[in-house]
Amino acid sequence: MQRYKCIISYDGSGFSGYQVQPNKRTVQKELEAVLAKMHKGDSVKVTGSGRTDAGVHAKGQVIHFESPLLIPEEKWEVALNSMLPEDISVLAVIKVDASFHARFDAFGKEYRYVLYLSSIRDPFQRNYACRYPYPLNLGLMKEASKYFLGTHDFTSFCAAKTEVKEKIRTIETIDFIMEDNYLTLRFVGNGFLYNMVRILVGTLLAVGSGDMKPEEIPGILEKRDRRFAGKTAPANGLYLWEVHYEENN
Amino acid sequence: MQRYKCIISYDGSGFSGYQVQPNKRTVQKELEAVLAKMHKGDSVKVTGSGRTDAGVHAKGQVIHFESPLLIPEEKWEVALNSMLPEDISVLAVIKVDASFHARFDAFGKEYRYVLYLSSIRDPFQRNYACRYPYPLNLGLMKEASKYFLGTHDFTSFCAAKTEVKEKIRTIETIDFIMEDNYLTLRFVGNGFLYNMVRILVGTLLAVGSGDMKPEEIPGILEKRDRRFAGKTAPANGLYLWEVHYEENN
Repeated sequence: MQRYKCIISYDGSGFSGYQVQPNKRTVQKELEAVLAKMHKGDSVKVTGSGRTDAGVHAKGQVIHFESPLLIPEEKWEVALNSMLPEDISVLAVIKVDASFHARFDAFGKEYRYVLYLSSIRDPFQRNYACRYPYPLNLGLMKEASKYFLGTHDFTSFCAAKTEVKEKIRTIETIDFIMEDNYLTLRFVGNGFLYNMVRILVGTLLAVGSGDMKPEEIPGILEKRDRRFAGKTAPANGLYLWEVHYEENN
Repeated sequence: MQRYKCIISYDGSGFSGYQVQPNKRTVQKELEAVLAKMHKGDSVKVTGSGRTDAGVHAKGQVIHFESPLLIPEEKWEVALNSMLPEDISVLAVIKVDASFHARFDAFGKEYRYVLYLSSIRDPFQRNYACRYPYPLNLGLMKEASKYFLGTHDFTSFCAAKTEVKEKIRTIETIDFIMEDNYLTLRFVGNGFLYNMVRILVGTLLAVGSGDMKPEEIPGILEKRDRRFAGKTAPANGLYLWEVHYEENN
């Protein structure tokens, strides 16, 4: 058996998220269906670096699987892309050691959230950016974002139903990239809890619109209670941008 | 009755084209459904500058309709956008003289065709650009495009089933805009026949790939026979970009 790491990209608009669910179209299900075909019906389990929700996109999701097939890396790529639907693309296939694990070995992730700051609807962006038509104070948002940097218990900033117990995470970077009418928020950290990026964005929007003050953030972190943070921003603006591994993987 | 001109944009991916067809989702049908609601069930006829096919997009399609409602222009815009589906957007509503006609008064149009020159599939571009993974000789394409400029009988460059009899059209401009991996072909002319832009693009791709020579174009125009031109390029790369009227409209 050979273990393969794949970097994949998908347009989340047409999927009920990454993970397999009964009677739903998911990314994992499409990948496993194609791998089963290539293995004459034998099921092949695909393991992702983590889930993404319905409507959330990926520019660089990472998965792994094992196969007895002796196919060079580039041919895997061509074969998978020829069988996968148009809204999933395999960007790279890399042979890895049998010990590699897409989830456990990831030591960091980058997410981006794209806001379209405009009072005019753009039909071409409806699935790919979250439109925000009101004024935003970028200076206050940047000030607020600094309180999230470093290591914190992010209980207030994840969905109340999150199953993971350990809610301490480290955020290294929050960047603000303004280009034309688009504001992209770039988050780099060692891991993100369920809905965490979307709640961070919702909270930063509350600060930017004047509903919340930057100085309130430390208090919200301390509460360890989802109800004190901002709203969960919509899925359509969120991209899993990159998953980070040690260099030899 | 007041006549209104509207500039609209739509993502063609989810539509069976612009024009009403039984049991199909079309742009005109969505517009007329919303206008009927605003007029308490009375039907309001919408007239477009021309049709667009299934999958073809519009950045600046123009339509007109008449209404007895006394609503200021900006309120029309807000009302229509609040009721229309997310893949159609009204960019402007302008009061016009009762003699204005979106189709008959249009003296020119601009179409753009977007090619994504890459061997890698991009799931986010699948509906918005036509991927072309083979080498292209841009110099030869530009040379060929010059034969299309000016006034010609474009019978060879429209779908064989085209009903319009008069097939003489004038193309003013064909521009080549290269940006990153995207090649955008910009066509400006006094009018375009059914499938004409897509067949022009297919023919230019045949030249760029070496299957046809630029000097063959005049002969193909003379044949007045669709079979001698190149293939019809896919709908997903095509955008009705702008419709031109006299300044006071």
